[in-house]
Amino acid sequence: MGDSKLYTLSDFQSIISQDLASYAKYKNEDPLFHPIHYLLQIGGKRMRPALVLLANQMLNGQIDDARSAALAVEVFHNFTLMHDDIMDQAPLRRSQETVHQKWNTNTAILSGDAMMIEAYRILCESPNQYIQVLLQVFNEVALGVCKGQELDMSFETRHDVNHDEYVEMIRLKTAILLGGALQLGGIVAGANKETQGHLYKIGEELGLAFQLRDDYLDAFGDPEKFGKLVGGDIISDKKTYLRILLNERMTDEEKKLAASPFSNDAEKVETIKSLMIKHQVDLESIHIAQTYIDSALQHLHSITATEDRKVELQNIILELAKRES
Amino acid sequence: MGDSKLYTLSDFQSIISQDLASYAKYKNEDPLFHPIHYLLQIGGKRMRPALVLLANQMLNGQIDDARSAALAVEVFHNFTLMHDDIMDQAPLRRSQETVHQKWNTNTAILSGDAMMIEAYRILCESPNQYIQVLLQVFNEVALGVCKGQELDMSFETRHDVNHDEYVEMIRLKTAILLGGALQLGGIVAGANKETQGHLYKIGEELGLAFQLRDDYLDAFGDPEKFGKLVGGDIISDKKTYLRILLNERMTDEEKKLAASPFSNDAEKVETIKSLMIKHQVDLESIHIAQTYIDSALQHLHSITATEDRKVELQNIILELAKRES
Repeated sequence: MGDSKLYTLSDFQSIISQDLASYAKYKNEDPLFHPIHYLLQIGGKRMRPALVLLANQMLNGQIDDARSAALAVEVFHNFTLMHDDIMDQAPLRRSQETVHQKWNTNTAILSGDAMMIEAYRILCESPNQYIQVLLQVFNEVALGVCKGQELDMSFETRHDVNHDEYVEMIRLKTAILLGGALQLGGIVAGANKETQGHLYKIGEELGLAFQLRDDYLDAFGDPEKFGKLVGGDIISDKKTYLRILLNERMTDEEKKLAASPFSNDAEKVETIKSLMIKHQVDLESIHIAQTYIDSALQHLHSITATEDRKVELQNIILELAKRES
Repeated sequence: MGDSKLYTLSDFQSIISQDLASYAKYKNEDPLFHPIHYLLQIGGKRMRPALVLLANQMLNGQIDDARSAALAVEVFHNFTLMHDDIMDQAPLRRSQETVHQKWNTNTAILSGDAMMIEAYRILCESPNQYIQVLLQVFNEVALGVCKGQELDMSFETRHDVNHDEYVEMIRLKTAILLGGALQLGGIVAGANKETQGHLYKIGEELGLAFQLRDDYLDAFGDPEKFGKLVGGDIISDKKTYLRILLNERMTDEEKKLAASPFSNDAEKVETIKSLMIKHQVDLESIHIAQTYIDSALQHLHSITATEDRKVELQNIILELAKRES
């Protein structure tokens, strides 16, 4: 790879699209696979497989050594979506019917199971010498993601969740898979343990920052730039980082006000947002997200690689820090 | 191991009980693992892990090299039970509440997912040099089991399932995991591909014979020896091997009779059984089961191993052939 042309994020996304298109032909006559291929073609930014390929390139790996791990991570991620959508009774994903809605719950359970096995099968197509280490990382991350979903569900019936518990939940449910993606990409480039550790942390911090910024934008985003309805989380009383922090800081009187019936959604959104601003919950969430971003950049800095091989990942981190949608 | 004492099936079952007891302490504070440990302690004959250990001993393997694969197979098997019970809406398993009944469906989905990941994690604790091959076999078997469940569910809404399709379904849903168990046990004993093939076939034929004999006993078993209600499958119109074969052989008039309302269950059972006897469906199912038994014995015969190391597996096969409960 020495001085050959480096791939950009968008190059990687094209490669992933090609690999997903090839995979869409795999067992496509088998009804067990129809929901798998359906969900995978719904799309998404393919950020997780891109992180695998980015880390691999950063450490001078061969792209072909990383493509199986990249596809495995995307298949695994979509397996979690298939089962999470059942658990959340979500009718739609990216404006298309979820699998349990389009088929039925049993099909979504079973094709999800098959999809997880497929993720392992595909991962095992990586170069032999890395399989054992890849599996160790993958198993730990996969179990952690289940644990994150378990925490998320358990929070629904609890009223005393604190902001540290919330961060731990999003760390497991979302962030560690980004960390795992970068680490897997490093492994197939022959990265040492220390570098693998930095890669994992970059993904983890990136995931945490992403989720906190998501929570912030839902309440304080610019309605013209933010894709979804601003205030949606407030209206549905979703336990976001901001709302949990607010609950920890409100006086008893303010708590009564926040829990009182509102004449309309707009009034509710405005009241809760005023309380958030008063208690500086908005500023704090931005501040914490920035510390995660800074830490991710610090870990990137600690990795021994040329700057031209770091720049794509650095851009992803910097763009996340200022994203408004 | 040369001339050291050989383990019996019951020795292996004790070892498996010990390993399951150790595993019951793993993450036992974690709510995600409560349903996993609950289901595993409900019990069962532990036949699958025993097959792993039996095959390993037959081929002069070290038992400690096979214990992880044995536990992984039992954990995987119980994962399939956890999810199948949701799909079948089964309230009880071995007279105890199923996981989705005792907790809820979401918990059973999620802990089942965690359980499958655990099966992979445990399998990866096998000796390094075998992991890649173990995973290849495990992945293929695991996906096949899902496919078997998919076929089983699809049969519920079909009226034209023939006996070949039925055999293919039970092969995938039940038999190949027994085959895989024996093959995994052979792999960690360093068995060559040919021997692995024989081991796999023994388990597969054993599984087919077991299921066909199960179908037979449900209709024609001795009520005093057969644990369950004799005729249960007939009463519920379950598509068993016997019933499918009968449907293929009945005249139109007999089909009308079989589908007519009966004044009570006993009359229904007697009528259908008479038709089965008339069309020799009972004899044929026993005959086919016996051909699977014979084939299993033939494959066992083809394996290069001393007779004293084959005897336990041979006994299992022979006892299956004459089992009455």
